[in-house]
Amino acid sequence: MEVQIAVAKVNKYATSESGDTLEVIERPNGGLSVVLADGQTSGRGAKAVSQLVVRKVLGLLAEGVRDGAAARAASDALYTDKKGKVICTLNIASVDLHSNTVVLTRNNPAPMYILRGETLDKLDAESVPLGISRDVRPLISEIALEPGLVVVIFTDGVTHAGERRGTPMEIGETIRAVMEDQDPTPQTLADALLGRAVELDENRPADDISVLVLKVSTRNGDNVRRMTVRLPIDGK
Amino acid sequence: MEVQIAVAKVNKYATSESGDTLEVIERPNGGLSVVLADGQTSGRGAKAVSQLVVRKVLGLLAEGVRDGAAARAASDALYTDKKGKVICTLNIASVDLHSNTVVLTRNNPAPMYILRGETLDKLDAESVPLGISRDVRPLISEIALEPGLVVVIFTDGVTHAGERRGTPMEIGETIRAVMEDQDPTPQTLADALLGRAVELDENRPADDISVLVLKVSTRNGDNVRRMTVRLPIDGK
Repeated sequence: MEVQIAVAKVNKYATSESGDTLEVIERPNGGLSVVLADGQTSGRGAKAVSQLVVRKVLGLLAEGVRDGAAARAASDALYTDKKGKVICTLNIASVDLHSNTVVLTRNNPAPMYILRGETLDKLDAESVPLGISRDVRPLISEIALEPGLVVVIFTDGVTHAGERRGTPMEIGETIRAVMEDQDPTPQTLADALLGRAVELDENRPADDISVLVLKVSTRNGDNVRRMTVRLPIDGK
Repeated sequence: MEVQIAVAKVNKYATSESGDTLEVIERPNGGLSVVLADGQTSGRGAKAVSQLVVRKVLGLLAEGVRDGAAARAASDALYTDKKGKVICTLNIASVDLHSNTVVLTRNNPAPMYILRGETLDKLDAESVPLGISRDVRPLISEIALEPGLVVVIFTDGVTHAGERRGTPMEIGETIRAVMEDQDPTPQTLADALLGRAVELDENRPADDISVLVLKVSTRNGDNVRRMTVRLPIDGK
């Protein structure tokens, strides 16, 4: 098998800093975790909050702390630091080679989508962001690592896209439309979701938008780990 | 402008864990850093050492500590922990949007290559790994961020490839040969270097091998940040 992860991310229109922070880290017992946080409001303040949360989570995961416990610790740290006045959403997607599962941790009102074969599930059980109160609990889903599994996670820049002009995004339909193509790459799906959200916001994103797609497939090539990053630099 | 980073990484033959650790982190003042460490020996012990070093460096960079100071702190921590008996190489490549430079930090006998236009420079000034003694200093190169810049960094799995059968790798020539093609992607170059090293080791890498390529180019598309990760899973 192989796991492919793709991320696409843009800032809110006319802001130089995204309030969304996304980092990937290798898990100490094998596999990797992707951590995505969206700090309240946008710009510099939101960035500081989402970075605080992501760093706290990364530090704990690196020590071998379980994902759910790391999310709760980050919530307590944020609540203590900001006295409950600032909230932050959190999603963790972990490929755990010890249990051979994908572990999805969510403290985010925005749903996640899980595609297995032809079945598209929307995970939208109520979930609160970090920092809102003491003892915030994440929702955790553990899914067997098997070819054909696709997980789609995003920040509320996607769920709120188009609301300004009364044309909200049909996320499930967009995912289905892309997946009808011949085995699209995760980057194709992430780009399509981001592109549709930006289009509905009339090319001026009303919020920071981040999309994360994780895909499990049969081994399709060599045993090389690969990573690519593209960082556009403004105005130069 | 845009920066593209590509990584290709394989384990030593018949080991399930790489002693090389590579992580990417967003810098608190803009830009990002790639941190690559190679722990002494291979397998589980080496992994623990390189993870210790990378985590220490990531934690400090996230707090805004400068790259050179982070490298020295990681060396002191390793020296204290292992009493000078275990060493670890370290490379940091940072895209610093504050100074508009690429900052290259090296505690690694293996050289780095810098390509600017047609000029290929080999940076091979003597450099010692972390943990070897007290007060280890990194070599630091700061290079203006401008289109056409390509930086190539690797662990000693590349420099030692082929030595077993007396056919050492011609790294500079391999880089030149790839760059003669029409604007190759960083992933193409990273894969070519890794592929050549594995070939010289007769498809049984004698050591963990990691290759990192950073390329600065004129903006070639939208303002979307992207990342992809590919994780092959053994024997499934």
